[in-house]
Amino acid sequence: MTPFKLTNELVGEIQILIENQNDAQLRLLMKEFHYADVAEIANELDELEATYLIKLLDSEKTSDILTELDEDVREAILNNLSPKEIASEIEELDTDDAADIVGELPTELVQEVISEIEDRDHAKDIVDLLRYDEDSAGGLMAKELVKVQENWTVTTCVKEMRIQAENVTRVHSIYVVDTEDKLKGRLSLKDLLTTSAKAPIKDIYIPKVDSVNVNEKPEEVAKIMSKYDLEAIPVVDQIGRLVGRITIDDIVDVIKEEADKDYQLAAGISQDVEADDSIWELTRARLPWLILGLFGGGAAAVIMSGFEDMFSTYTVLFLFTPLIAAMAGNVGVQSSAIIVQGLANDDIKGSIGNRLIKEMLLALLNGVILAALLLLFTWIWKGSFTTALAISVSLIAVIIVAGFIGTFTPLFLHKRGIDPAIATGPFITTSNDIFGILIYFWIAKMILGI
Amino acid sequence: MTPFKLTNELVGEIQILIENQNDAQLRLLMKEFHYADVAEIANELDELEATYLIKLLDSEKTSDILTELDEDVREAILNNLSPKEIASEIEELDTDDAADIVGELPTELVQEVISEIEDRDHAKDIVDLLRYDEDSAGGLMAKELVKVQENWTVTTCVKEMRIQAENVTRVHSIYVVDTEDKLKGRLSLKDLLTTSAKAPIKDIYIPKVDSVNVNEKPEEVAKIMSKYDLEAIPVVDQIGRLVGRITIDDIVDVIKEEADKDYQLAAGISQDVEADDSIWELTRARLPWLILGLFGGGAAAVIMSGFEDMFSTYTVLFLFTPLIAAMAGNVGVQSSAIIVQGLANDDIKGSIGNRLIKEMLLALLNGVILAALLLLFTWIWKGSFTTALAISVSLIAVIIVAGFIGTFTPLFLHKRGIDPAIATGPFITTSNDIFGILIYFWIAKMILGI
Repeated sequence: MTPFKLTNELVGEIQILIENQNDAQLRLLMKEFHYADVAEIANELDELEATYLIKLLDSEKTSDILTELDEDVREAILNNLSPKEIASEIEELDTDDAADIVGELPTELVQEVISEIEDRDHAKDIVDLLRYDEDSAGGLMAKELVKVQENWTVTTCVKEMRIQAENVTRVHSIYVVDTEDKLKGRLSLKDLLTTSAKAPIKDIYIPKVDSVNVNEKPEEVAKIMSKYDLEAIPVVDQIGRLVGRITIDDIVDVIKEEADKDYQLAAGISQDVEADDSIWELTRARLPWLILGLFGGGAAAVIMSGFEDMFSTYTVLFLFTPLIAAMAGNVGVQSSAIIVQGLANDDIKGSIGNRLIKEMLLALLNGVILAALLLLFTWIWKGSFTTALAISVSLIAVIIVAGFIGTFTPLFLHKRGIDPAIATGPFITTSNDIFGILIYFWIAKMILGI
Repeated sequence: MTPFKLTNELVGEIQILIENQNDAQLRLLMKEFHYADVAEIANELDELEATYLIKLLDSEKTSDILTELDEDVREAILNNLSPKEIASEIEELDTDDAADIVGELPTELVQEVISEIEDRDHAKDIVDLLRYDEDSAGGLMAKELVKVQENWTVTTCVKEMRIQAENVTRVHSIYVVDTEDKLKGRLSLKDLLTTSAKAPIKDIYIPKVDSVNVNEKPEEVAKIMSKYDLEAIPVVDQIGRLVGRITIDDIVDVIKEEADKDYQLAAGISQDVEADDSIWELTRARLPWLILGLFGGGAAAVIMSGFEDMFSTYTVLFLFTPLIAAMAGNVGVQSSAIIVQGLANDDIKGSIGNRLIKEMLLALLNGVILAALLLLFTWIWKGSFTTALAISVSLIAVIIVAGFIGTFTPLFLHKRGIDPAIATGPFITTSNDIFGILIYFWIAKMILGI
């Protein structure tokens, strides 16, 4: 396979074809590309060009393209389509993707689009899915699945399965339900084919099947599916009725989004932004954390001004404030990051107390090594052993407190049901800057006996 | 499904059963658990207990448990098994998992274990896989797949498929190869079943199939599979011969590991460590970055001492050094993180020049807003407008330079083929601390006309 590569030349070529309305050539070119690649191209076109392209191609392909587009591009294109045109795109999609797109439409349009969908069952399924919170298993699942009733015979079952499988891209599993639609188990295709045609399903199905509740968080579903290597998982409602199915491709997206979000939070970027977003969007995502940092810096300045009387005699103390702030920040981020990651991967066992003791010991070990280096450096540089010792001992205290804050904060937030990832990055850096500098001057002052 | 929950009580209960050699009870209890759950339990046991458990259970289940164990626990258990016992575990595994385990064995054991494997084809496949770099498509793939030759008839094909499918857990796709084993396309099960038995495969197969080269990086394979929503992808060698297949469950692991690694690098943690690793391992992963930070802080101190003559008159300048260092660090991390993430997701288009200009504009916008806040604060606090202005203008300059370094460094590393993720976190923070403080004093000095 020669992988698809999006180039400026290719985009330019397509723009010229659109401008010249060279439809035949455009169709021919697009036929070669996977829908995900066409979506990448369309993301680079302007609104009218992208709409032209979508209107030109078959809805069988364009519906898939729509699902892969950047949200703003998709919105712009859908704005230029009639409810009937949107409905014909929706018609081609699986219910989960269809519901995602309908969910993005302006409220006044939803009703109209839904009413234009010819397949009424499909429309009903989509409306059904719209009820669920986007951030839940219900918001992820599709209605497409193959299910059979436990009191059917093998013959009925095979016949029904054939009909159902028509609408399901990848079958994965055959689920068994009772007359009230409650999930009972699953069926192995092999058993089905090697059993007498008149046997009832209840005699041959496997009564063990993993499932998730419709209100389960997507991250939890992702954990379960990746832990148990599942390619699909059935979703049940509060009373155990089979309501949908989640496939691994959606979970791959969840895992990636979750990782991106945590990474951005750790770097002080809120909201889901990308490098190619506008300067305004990027500012909105970044400025709040910077303002937090500014307040922290202001607080540090006020604290330091409280020690101004030491300025003339112990200038060297002030020279090391950036070092102290940096070390407090680095240690804090290291500690919090490893806790946040551990919580995300369910690796954190044992009590908070033990975890804190371990982190304190670790901080002490690191602190002593770093303090020894700093002692040597300062002693040689400034010639005063007492000052060098005061600075180094303070550094150890600062590192221990930084480790404590970095460990405790995410664990505390997690206990309180708050996403611990917000406690990484600027949050920890800023609070550690303030505490670090306070502790540093305080201890140094004590040691120097000022 | 009631999800499995690892508790200290459960581990304790199992330890008692092991101590009492209550095998019947242990087998009964373990039968209820998924192998991934048993692995979680075994990770908490000591070496001898874990070995006891593995020896007790059937190799059909223990082989899967072994693949899920922490590497050090697995190594400890395998140390207690004879080559013959290891071979019987290997025998139960798919070739990719088998090769991973054999690859971890001490070199002198490998030969012996391989020779104990009864299924010689399986052994051959494993040896074959051992040749590939762990960090490549070849290192990820399994030999288990279903392939048919283009010159076979439908009848031969169905017969051969039945035999091959015996060894393949999930078939996913039927690949079509020529007589030289070169990948030609894939076969739809539906077409196969609706075509006359004597038709040659070459008339009915789909000549288009995505594939990856055996030397492709795992991250690239992950990108391709998630972009195109593939659940399996065939792997070909340099001359296009079908040599293996990668399934989505392995890719989910790649995506998670990759995300964890980038996250840790951004937080200043090198190597792959977990919260539950030993203090020594955690120190080795964290101390290098802290020492880097120490050097940076030392450099900042030396720079500041060059401006010592300003101490008495412009004390306030020195009070803001932690603020300057923090802002430079935060902006740098934000910029680099968004570039690193963009590079990982292939979102970065256009030239480095344009990217830098955009980041400069963004930094300017953020810088002006932050400087205005700082100006107000300092003016009110200290009463001198000139000093407040000098500090604020310096802040803008510091932010722009920090944005530049944060943007340029990962882009530069990426161009040079170095993982840009190492340029996030402490690396950027430290260099930005140094540059930030230098620029700050330099510009403030100019403005104040000292």
